[in-house]
Amino acid sequence: MAAAVSLPRVFKGRSVLITGGMGFIGANLARTLVKFGARVTVVDAMIPEYGGNTRNLAGVAAKVKVHRIDVRDHAKVARLVRGQDFLFNLAGQTSHMDSMTDPETDLEINCRAQLALLETCRKNNPGVRIVFASTRQIYGKPDYLPVDELHPVRPVDVNGINKAAGEAFHLLYARVHGIRATALRLTNTIGPRMRVKDARQTFVGVWVRRLIEGEPIEVWGGEQQRDFTYVDDAVEAFLLAAAREEAVGEVFNLGGPPPVTLQALAELMVEVNEGGAFVVRAFPAERKKIDIGDYFADDRKIARVLGWKPRTDLRAALTKTLAYYRKELPHYL
Amino acid sequence: MAAAVSLPRVFKGRSVLITGGMGFIGANLARTLVKFGARVTVVDAMIPEYGGNTRNLAGVAAKVKVHRIDVRDHAKVARLVRGQDFLFNLAGQTSHMDSMTDPETDLEINCRAQLALLETCRKNNPGVRIVFASTRQIYGKPDYLPVDELHPVRPVDVNGINKAAGEAFHLLYARVHGIRATALRLTNTIGPRMRVKDARQTFVGVWVRRLIEGEPIEVWGGEQQRDFTYVDDAVEAFLLAAAREEAVGEVFNLGGPPPVTLQALAELMVEVNEGGAFVVRAFPAERKKIDIGDYFADDRKIARVLGWKPRTDLRAALTKTLAYYRKELPHYL
Repeated sequence: MAAAVSLPRVFKGRSVLITGGMGFIGANLARTLVKFGARVTVVDAMIPEYGGNTRNLAGVAAKVKVHRIDVRDHAKVARLVRGQDFLFNLAGQTSHMDSMTDPETDLEINCRAQLALLETCRKNNPGVRIVFASTRQIYGKPDYLPVDELHPVRPVDVNGINKAAGEAFHLLYARVHGIRATALRLTNTIGPRMRVKDARQTFVGVWVRRLIEGEPIEVWGGEQQRDFTYVDDAVEAFLLAAAREEAVGEVFNLGGPPPVTLQALAELMVEVNEGGAFVVRAFPAERKKIDIGDYFADDRKIARVLGWKPRTDLRAALTKTLAYYRKELPHYL
Repeated sequence: MAAAVSLPRVFKGRSVLITGGMGFIGANLARTLVKFGARVTVVDAMIPEYGGNTRNLAGVAAKVKVHRIDVRDHAKVARLVRGQDFLFNLAGQTSHMDSMTDPETDLEINCRAQLALLETCRKNNPGVRIVFASTRQIYGKPDYLPVDELHPVRPVDVNGINKAAGEAFHLLYARVHGIRATALRLTNTIGPRMRVKDARQTFVGVWVRRLIEGEPIEVWGGEQQRDFTYVDDAVEAFLLAAAREEAVGEVFNLGGPPPVTLQALAELMVEVNEGGAFVVRAFPAERKKIDIGDYFADDRKIARVLGWKPRTDLRAALTKTLAYYRKELPHYL
């Protein structure tokens, strides 16, 4: 095993670009990097249906260069890529349903813009260290559980197809062109700064909002098993992946504390919230067509190679998340 | 097993659109469909580096409506899709090397235009029967041989990534939107009307040309095993897939006679040609990075479900191909 790295030392004074950096995970990453003394530049299109929110950088905004740029605008992104030491590539369209009703936008962002960004790096900054936010969605309906990185990639919706292509481009550019890219396949990430306006980013956001607003949570189905990563743990995974050479050209699942059913999650949330209710509804037909059933990750590879481990259990994650939105909810509506 | 279908009866008087219809397989398909009495419309961009060649429709041109349209021009393609009974979707960028030097063009044609075409069908002709020309390239370096349809999809070049996405869109639209699409994963297809100017479509084209021109064939490596489908057999597979409801939403490998090493193929070609020579060269480094090693298909699924079987052995395929180009070569240079 390689010696432990001091993450603050790795990033101090280094130039870091974060696409989707006003969004949920991107902004949490930016905040940590500012704390480490990195020079942080953020790109975000601030599309209303996506995750970007100026509130996400509250308190650190003066220390972050923010560019309101869409990753589909390749020429503008290209100018920002030059001179960066690290590129955390998190910009994406995340809604499965939106990908089905507007598949071409999903393709432009999750597939085409990714290839263009990699071409830009190859031409203008071939030494940049890239970590790409991929998703468990590319596995589709699991053949077996927990799902490891060798599980076939067989997406069940347009979002999954485009994310699979976007990830494949990163790994191909690592293998063929020597671009130092790593892909992390995220599962449900939860925590402060997630979108709570609707379920476009994660259904947990809507649940948090409804609990705080005193409305019952709607659980669709309820028996599906899922795993959840707390955002601070996800941020640490991105930083470790960027810091460690062993990660170049590799793909890693992120997991979290042991999986739970959606109904058990709802029960725990009501308990942690010290009040509230949930109703269980039948799964809507249009969602069923693109549903993946049970999913939880085998994350032993990232534990073994990078020493990553989730530090936050589900109860603590929900407690911190609810505490954040009890104060901050108005900024997220 | 379903009763055998009479292909001429299925297609007689029906409206058929073929994208890439001036190309190698597309034109052979168009010729057969004309013979069956179908109303054939062809779309081809006639890009010089691709497979389109007016000579490919010699003798049937008067019976085929030809539109010189690029599949990236979605609006124009959309107008042609209306009212068609069948859509054979063969337009594509086929060169692996070109996909690495100009990845964005490959994405536009093999990925983005495919999604746009499916959206067009969904909106304007949801009942059309589609057969999509996919490729064994999406499997990447095989885990096992022969490769069946359950083999993981793990492409090793930009072309493979985009073709995998293009295929996945077809199968997704079948499953979720009820679009009646089938995908055929082609291996090396050979025969009259293939591109022989260079190796952008198949290396066998260049070999045929060099033999006829009295130049030695260049064999790179030589030990790699490959399988070959004769174009008439490939055409039959497309027609069967379109004719049979069992094929909707399915993906099928095409194979052929037993696989051979590239060196054995070169030897057989020299023998069939009754003259010529080949030289074996080391595999170029830039190609090695995206090479898939040995490949041959398990094509038992299409045999079982559609009753397809290759009828033409390799010797006969090469004999017919060489005979064609001995007469026709000037039209293909």
